[in-house]
Amino acid sequence: MPLVHISLQEGKSPEYIQALADGIHEALCTAWEIPQNDRFQIIHEHRSTHFLIDKKMWDINRSDNVIVIYIISISRSTEMKVKFYKEVVKILKKKPGIREEDVFISILHNEKDCWSFGNGIAQLIASSINGK
Amino acid sequence: MPLVHISLQEGKSPEYIQALADGIHEALCTAWEIPQNDRFQIIHEHRSTHFLIDKKMWDINRSDNVIVIYIISISRSTEMKVKFYKEVVKILKKKPGIREEDVFISILHNEKDCWSFGNGIAQLIASSINGK
Amino acid sequence: MPLVHISLQEGKSPEYIQALADGIHEALCTAWEIPQNDRFQIIHEHRSTHFLIDKKMWDINRSDNVIVIYIISISRSTEMKVKFYKEVVKILKKKPGIREEDVFISILHNEKDCWSFGNGIAQLIASSINGK
Repeated sequence: MPLVHISLQEGKSPEYIQALADGIHEALCTAWEIPQNDRFQIIHEHRSTHFLIDKKMWDINRSDNVIVIYIISISRSTEMKVKFYKEVVKILKKKPGIREEDVFISILHNEKDCWSFGNGIAQLIASSINGK
Repeated sequence: MPLVHISLQEGKSPEYIQALADGIHEALCTAWEIPQNDRFQIIHEHRSTHFLIDKKMWDINRSDNVIVIYIISISRSTEMKVKFYKEVVKILKKKPGIREEDVFISILHNEKDCWSFGNGIAQLIASSINGK
Repeated sequence: MPLVHISLQEGKSPEYIQALADGIHEALCTAWEIPQNDRFQIIHEHRSTHFLIDKKMWDINRSDNVIVIYIISISRSTEMKVKFYKEVVKILKKKPGIREEDVFISILHNEKDCWSFGNGIAQLIASSINGK
């Protein structure tokens, strides 16, 4: 269910982008224990003039390879979020080879009744409510 | 006021996209009783490699025609959200002809003071606060 | 830290877009007292058929130059938000020359543990939690 937006500067190869998306999903599967096929990702490529991500703020030395991940999900514990941050930089460092400094993440939470995965039903809440 | 993002795989006709946007708006008007001209929609088309929406999760058989709707709105009741889910699949099935399985929705809520519709004023809160 | 998305109809010059992004950042620096280099902006240009922003709702006379700003941030007071709305229309009116009616804003809040600015750490929460 998490809906995952991934933003990066344009110009990377399809293989790079695939590995990036795969790595983020793998980290979510590990940290949040979501199923392998609970994958809903949208990837956005931006011109450098349209992707204005500061290179120094928070004492972090970012490069042009910086990626911005924003995730919409039902509530997750602080522990789960911290686990995801750690896991995703570890995985992306190996493949496609993204520096730890270049992974910027923001998470937004919503409620269970805010989701419909198809068929016009709110799958995460009691079926009796959907049936009304 | 709801700000509505609509994401789909690229390649549909302008007529299809117009009907899709019209249908989503019609469903919101019915389910949430918003005015006809309270329409703020942004449509995003994505390459298939950049729109990684699982085809099976939640026991739903999705196709390449899957659409992802994400809506930012002030709080709405569970009943109103469930009504919207039902209504939108019914309308989109008729026109432009989207299968019920292919409608994926996520809603995000914010507060009344989080909106300015123009003129630098927060229209949904008391004018005395804006006047300060 | 605010993550700022800016949407507008395509066709403006690079100078116009730069001034728009600069102005929004300047307004945030003033209203929310964020540092000058706390700048994380993503700019989206849309075809007119994909940017369906009503021209009359809320008794505001919008033009094709309307911009939609949506900001993800930790909680800010009503006073700070109202200050930002006022400030941003004032600045954008001067440069690049956007009418007050054409500035549409929506803000989404999240928690401190929802952010990682790099290095796989949640910078806004206690380092002891990150160390676990």
